[in-house]
Amino acid sequence: MQDDAEAIRGLMSAYGRVLDQRDYAGWAALFAQDGEWVGGDVYGTIRGHADLLAFVTREFAATPPCVHMLGNMAVDVEGDQASGWSRWLLIEQAPEDGMRMALAGSYDDRFVRTAHGWRIARGVVADDLP
Amino acid sequence: MQDDAEAIRGLMSAYGRVLDQRDYAGWAALFAQDGEWVGGDVYGTIRGHADLLAFVTREFAATPPCVHMLGNMAVDVEGDQASGWSRWLLIEQAPEDGMRMALAGSYDDRFVRTAHGWRIARGVVADDLP
Amino acid sequence: MQDDAEAIRGLMSAYGRVLDQRDYAGWAALFAQDGEWVGGDVYGTIRGHADLLAFVTREFAATPPCVHMLGNMAVDVEGDQASGWSRWLLIEQAPEDGMRMALAGSYDDRFVRTAHGWRIARGVVADDLP
Repeated sequence: MQDDAEAIRGLMSAYGRVLDQRDYAGWAALFAQDGEWVGGDVYGTIRGHADLLAFVTREFAATPPCVHMLGNMAVDVEGDQASGWSRWLLIEQAPEDGMRMALAGSYDDRFVRTAHGWRIARGVVADDLP
Repeated sequence: MQDDAEAIRGLMSAYGRVLDQRDYAGWAALFAQDGEWVGGDVYGTIRGHADLLAFVTREFAATPPCVHMLGNMAVDVEGDQASGWSRWLLIEQAPEDGMRMALAGSYDDRFVRTAHGWRIARGVVADDLP
Repeated sequence: MQDDAEAIRGLMSAYGRVLDQRDYAGWAALFAQDGEWVGGDVYGTIRGHADLLAFVTREFAATPPCVHMLGNMAVDVEGDQASGWSRWLLIEQAPEDGMRMALAGSYDDRFVRTAHGWRIARGVVADDLP
């Protein structure tokens, strides 16, 4: 049995894992029914499972194999809601050889407890580097 | 409500976040009143909020935009004291384009419970690479 | 006092730390007596403290100074057993100068509670990049 903070850490672990596995439906399912992914000026706000699935499928169509490294995770649970902050680093297969750091940023998340466990209610993504 | 280990993880998450945001006062405030940052032969020991603030302001004055990635975090709470160990990787904006790994090391920390929550009592920083 | 999930996080923190310190006996001791490290087609399965120690000593003999960065850690405890998933990024000292990303992958672990605390029962290592 996991406590709430541990379950939310597991949710964010899955967030990176399923993206790297190209499990797009698995990624959309990490959000609440009306959950939002908020990508700022570039991407806008994507809401709900169908739109999230279409979005992530499109965005990752042309990207090379990658690894999402997540760290610095803070989790704060308040009853059936929670907030979280974490760092992410996107590492991609390099065109010739080896790996390259593609992007680094942060996730600023609101989570909600649902009948199926904790889900992302609103995930605000910031690109910090480069 | 957070348990103690979770609160300390949040403190270390903030440690990296405020450095990357250049929130120097926010960084100094993560330490106890007489808290110490111990940087070894190169930096010596910096003690107390005023000296910590002056130190971090000076050290980051000329550095490019950066991201602190923290991982491998261990936390062990003993009443009103705690210890922690974590890895850090400092990623900087590269001079021309993209990102570069600048430094990697470890934090070996002692934490103390204060009237304002957990704070760093003594943080020993090691540079391991390059 | 740590709860079980926290203790397992500490175990994985030590996993990376002792490898980077070349503390091979310390690494082998993180496994249960008959614990297994499962490296797939390349490495096969290494079982038990003596073989684990010989294996890690041999594998790291010629590698440059390195840092294991661990993140995305999920831990799920079920009584005296637990599972975990985490990302790892291996950073090495570069031949000329600076650091290079050498490998990135995942750990898919089974843990067991022993008389001496939590240990790795079976750790499956995957290389994902490059």
